[in-house]
Amino acid sequence: MTNLKITSHSSFSALLEGLPSPQQHFIDEATQRQSALTKPPGSLGRLEEIAVFLAGWQGKLKPTTDNVHCLVFAGNHGVTRKGVSAFPSEVTEQMVANFATGGAAINQLCAAAGATLDVIALDLDQPVADFTSGPAMSDEECCAAIQAGIDAVPEDADIILLGEMGIGNTTSAAAVAQATFGCFPSDWVGRGTGVDDNGFKAKLKAVEDAHLLHLSSQISSFDILRTVGGRELAAIAGATLAARHKRIPVILDGLISTAAAAALVKSNPDALDHCLISHLSVEPGHKLIAEKVHKKPLLDLGMRLGEASGAAVALMIIKSALAAHNGMATFKEAGVTSGD
Amino acid sequence: MTNLKITSHSSFSALLEGLPSPQQHFIDEATQRQSALTKPPGSLGRLEEIAVFLAGWQGKLKPTTDNVHCLVFAGNHGVTRKGVSAFPSEVTEQMVANFATGGAAINQLCAAAGATLDVIALDLDQPVADFTSGPAMSDEECCAAIQAGIDAVPEDADIILLGEMGIGNTTSAAAVAQATFGCFPSDWVGRGTGVDDNGFKAKLKAVEDAHLLHLSSQISSFDILRTVGGRELAAIAGATLAARHKRIPVILDGLISTAAAAALVKSNPDALDHCLISHLSVEPGHKLIAEKVHKKPLLDLGMRLGEASGAAVALMIIKSALAAHNGMATFKEAGVTSGD
Repeated sequence: MTNLKITSHSSFSALLEGLPSPQQHFIDEATQRQSALTKPPGSLGRLEEIAVFLAGWQGKLKPTTDNVHCLVFAGNHGVTRKGVSAFPSEVTEQMVANFATGGAAINQLCAAAGATLDVIALDLDQPVADFTSGPAMSDEECCAAIQAGIDAVPEDADIILLGEMGIGNTTSAAAVAQATFGCFPSDWVGRGTGVDDNGFKAKLKAVEDAHLLHLSSQISSFDILRTVGGRELAAIAGATLAARHKRIPVILDGLISTAAAAALVKSNPDALDHCLISHLSVEPGHKLIAEKVHKKPLLDLGMRLGEASGAAVALMIIKSALAAHNGMATFKEAGVTSGD
Repeated sequence: MTNLKITSHSSFSALLEGLPSPQQHFIDEATQRQSALTKPPGSLGRLEEIAVFLAGWQGKLKPTTDNVHCLVFAGNHGVTRKGVSAFPSEVTEQMVANFATGGAAINQLCAAAGATLDVIALDLDQPVADFTSGPAMSDEECCAAIQAGIDAVPEDADIILLGEMGIGNTTSAAAVAQATFGCFPSDWVGRGTGVDDNGFKAKLKAVEDAHLLHLSSQISSFDILRTVGGRELAAIAGATLAARHKRIPVILDGLISTAAAAALVKSNPDALDHCLISHLSVEPGHKLIAEKVHKKPLLDLGMRLGEASGAAVALMIIKSALAAHNGMATFKEAGVTSGD
């Protein structure tokens, strides 16, 4: 196992090189199994793809969901002073308390899907700096946030779901995506939790200002997370990378989680090979990121909550996919005439 | 409770009039509850719509999935003699045996979603007549098949899932949809279980021939089911209608189930108000039916198996929707500042 310790920009970049691949042997075996099951070939569509994908990364012909962890990282954002959110910053901490007492959507969605919820609050009393006037984090702060993400990934998880809570973080996510993929700031900015026209204009201006201020220094994945990320975004990138080194498949939630993980492709285009995008968010930037990383979200349910809520719903689909893959009879076992 | 006995064309048509509506009181209460839960309004997207829809039909502020029945109707088709399927007719009975021993996709998907599977085989040794040379069924046969569907709906179900098994029945479904909604036969015909070019041409010709032969007699929903339906399609229409009279919400599977239920709108445009379409099938005709009945399928996973497989996967989404709706805390309960 690679030593997963981030102490500097360069130690992070080093961990983004030479990433492990899925195990082809299990991909081949799972593909063969799918073609032998009592159904027309390919007729379960993406359920078949999911099963084969998980087989490759888990290294199991019959993948499991016995130990799924949902990691929700929370952070606060200095850019909220620019009026970018419909909710005040204290809601981040209030929602973390709501997670602790079981009242939030993600508590219920994890319980329904049989996932363990781990909430990691990251220095909520110290928002990252307003990235419209300087870098969001110092090197040390960014390393610490990435490390928190790395350390949150259990060694033996079957799958991890990644999500976040952070008032103001759709603005950070838009800036991260813009820095990663280019295009215009306006391509990445949406209404978030439901800002009015003034809030929307403030978000757009913040992302434009950040672009002008930080463009020349946004060379690597680390640069992007440090200049315009938040602690929870850096942690999600760290968790995504740690999961890859452990060959644990990752289910990304919506705009913010996907933007944070996708920052990794700035330094390594294959960095998200072990990830699925759970759902297509209403946030317009999410569709564009999904296209840029060549992944089709599993669900399109008009969700835009965050908290890993979409990832937890997608886990239900994964359970269906594995129920069929692991439990069905083959044509031979069932004595059914195949179409060959 | 209306007497749900079908003895003639006219008794079926009578049951299609004066259909019950959802309970507005529970729709209003569930809508209010959604707006009080700890999330930005509307941020759970279609999960919120599903919860409110079920509240109205079940007549419960907090809808339940304790008693979900998945009804899979099986029938055989004389039109298979025209080479419309990649599989021989005996596969219908073999798959019914596979359902009985638990080896099929729907067994596993129902188990994963906590639904009870009821398989109803309809005279498999007597395929309906080849509808390219005459009506598929007599009045009596069609009434008996509809009645089998009605009788299969449990009095106390929370939700029913509707699906089918029947070699050749995508051809029947295409003919039913064409008779219900018009358009060209080619708009409704797809590859089914995976026919080659010759099979595809044979399907198209069968639907075209049926159109020319039966057009003048396809006035009512019953006419359509009798002339070009199969027993399993007539049963699905009957089950859909029975569920409506019992205010039980219905989750339709793919092309065939949706086409069968949608035949009801020929006689009553509001007949599917209590139904959701679970997923968008790969079959091109399914998208068109969904548009014609103004319903957006919950899922789009490239599935085309039938057996109610898509409906059982969609039940997982419904469980997520209700977990959030029933279990989340309100802003007031959690002490979270709302965005108002």
